[in-house]
Amino acid sequence: MRRILFVMSGQEALGASLQDLGSFEKGVLELRQFPDGETYVRVDSDVRGAQVVLLCQLHHPDEKILPLLLLVGTLRDLGVHSIGLVAPYLAYMRQDKRFHAGEGISARYFARLLSQQFDWLLTVDPHLHRIHALNEVYSMPALALTAVEPIAQWLRSHVKLPLIVGPDGESEQWARKVALAADCPWEVLSKQRFGDREVEVSLPHVCEYLDRTPVLVDDIISTGRTMQQAAAHLRASGMQPPVCIGVHGIFAPGAREEMEAAGLRVVTSNSIADVSNQIDLAPLLMLGLQQFLR
Amino acid sequence: MRRILFVMSGQEALGASLQDLGSFEKGVLELRQFPDGETYVRVDSDVRGAQVVLLCQLHHPDEKILPLLLLVGTLRDLGVHSIGLVAPYLAYMRQDKRFHAGEGISARYFARLLSQQFDWLLTVDPHLHRIHALNEVYSMPALALTAVEPIAQWLRSHVKLPLIVGPDGESEQWARKVALAADCPWEVLSKQRFGDREVEVSLPHVCEYLDRTPVLVDDIISTGRTMQQAAAHLRASGMQPPVCIGVHGIFAPGAREEMEAAGLRVVTSNSIADVSNQIDLAPLLMLGLQQFLR
Repeated sequence: MRRILFVMSGQEALGASLQDLGSFEKGVLELRQFPDGETYVRVDSDVRGAQVVLLCQLHHPDEKILPLLLLVGTLRDLGVHSIGLVAPYLAYMRQDKRFHAGEGISARYFARLLSQQFDWLLTVDPHLHRIHALNEVYSMPALALTAVEPIAQWLRSHVKLPLIVGPDGESEQWARKVALAADCPWEVLSKQRFGDREVEVSLPHVCEYLDRTPVLVDDIISTGRTMQQAAAHLRASGMQPPVCIGVHGIFAPGAREEMEAAGLRVVTSNSIADVSNQIDLAPLLMLGLQQFLR
Repeated sequence: MRRILFVMSGQEALGASLQDLGSFEKGVLELRQFPDGETYVRVDSDVRGAQVVLLCQLHHPDEKILPLLLLVGTLRDLGVHSIGLVAPYLAYMRQDKRFHAGEGISARYFARLLSQQFDWLLTVDPHLHRIHALNEVYSMPALALTAVEPIAQWLRSHVKLPLIVGPDGESEQWARKVALAADCPWEVLSKQRFGDREVEVSLPHVCEYLDRTPVLVDDIISTGRTMQQAAAHLRASGMQPPVCIGVHGIFAPGAREEMEAAGLRVVTSNSIADVSNQIDLAPLLMLGLQQFLR
């Protein structure tokens, strides 16, 4: 069956990698805004009967969703066989419960909306916390891959003697898995509370690791504050300046620049296009795509 | 049954008018963006069992739709009885057929999306052209009101001796209805082609109307070019400077300013908030709301 890859704006680099690996036909598309802010959609490829893969980066999702859904409507009218969504970064996974009265559980509404439109979903390290698996909220087949192996691979060729450090308790699983894959030690910064407010963060077994390069890993870098605080504690313990790895570099405005100004080396995967991208997810995504494409 | 009105950003003025007329409870809402561009929704009103009306201006729809859908999800989780959408300007009505190969029929996809979410829709003068009635594309109950009477009312108190002028053939029906309601004469500018390109636009019976104020009426003012060309022809015929009335002032950037700089008086309804709003749709919308609320 013919397989066509459509790459949404912003994902051109990852799209090109996937294109090469997966021997897709290249989907050609015109998506632009009318002066009144509505989106014009035209598909310039023959898609009839084809398996269509849409690659889209879903950070800053609000303005992207409607054009995406109009494209899906157009593709279905044009007679495609199926449409899968490859969203290496999956948005709206963090509002996963009603934290305060009157709040919505956006993760569920977003999942329902996408599930109505696509035939399957492929993503990388979604922020699963109170939602333990995508199929709790996504009713379409949804596969979550993990970037642990691509991160470990990058470490093997770029960092001598790494020490994986989880910046906080939530990242413990993460740190452990990356360390196992990269065959190196790992630690998690532990917080101790004294009284109401004072928090002391300490790295256990510091003296064993003074020859190692600390590598902070987390799934998302957003404001970068967790990473910066962790880095400050490592430095105070006499460690070398750390490498900061995030799978998804969402980066609030100025966040990466601030981290770099503080002497941190920031490395992300290409789930969201950014100059810090060094970890290519294309080979991983190809493994996942084989689950859905025939 | 309790009736609660939620007013989305931008529609505060029309919302306040409706609030007064309809004795709604005022819905209180927090909608803001996280640093990563995702929307946070919290409903601060007790909505359980209530009929909810959402007033939303849908021009520049792309960035508004996802927050709107997240709000709908939240309201349903909070146990509302029903949710109706009042969108005085209904977006995505113009891409109503496949004009070129590969295009989508966005009007249909947009209608399907909204119909999945809301219980009913109320709008004013949607751009019905190749789609002749909303229920051809909207599967929920959808009522289209017309601003003809509010426009006629405004004319009666603001323009002595008006002559309604349709700027082009498409606006003939419009011009006729407004003239009937305002009890004044009407004409449509007619285009005559000479050869391939030259177009002569003429106003029939000019000499009968030299004492009248020409009033150009159309459903949408977007770039304002149709109105400006029509105004130029009226002026060339020796007519007074026209009043330009649009139900929906969508206004491409700078369009209204350009029309005003050309000496035109621009008047719109408050379907889309703008300094040119002079025609209040609240009484008309109240009539429509009575169809849906008990």
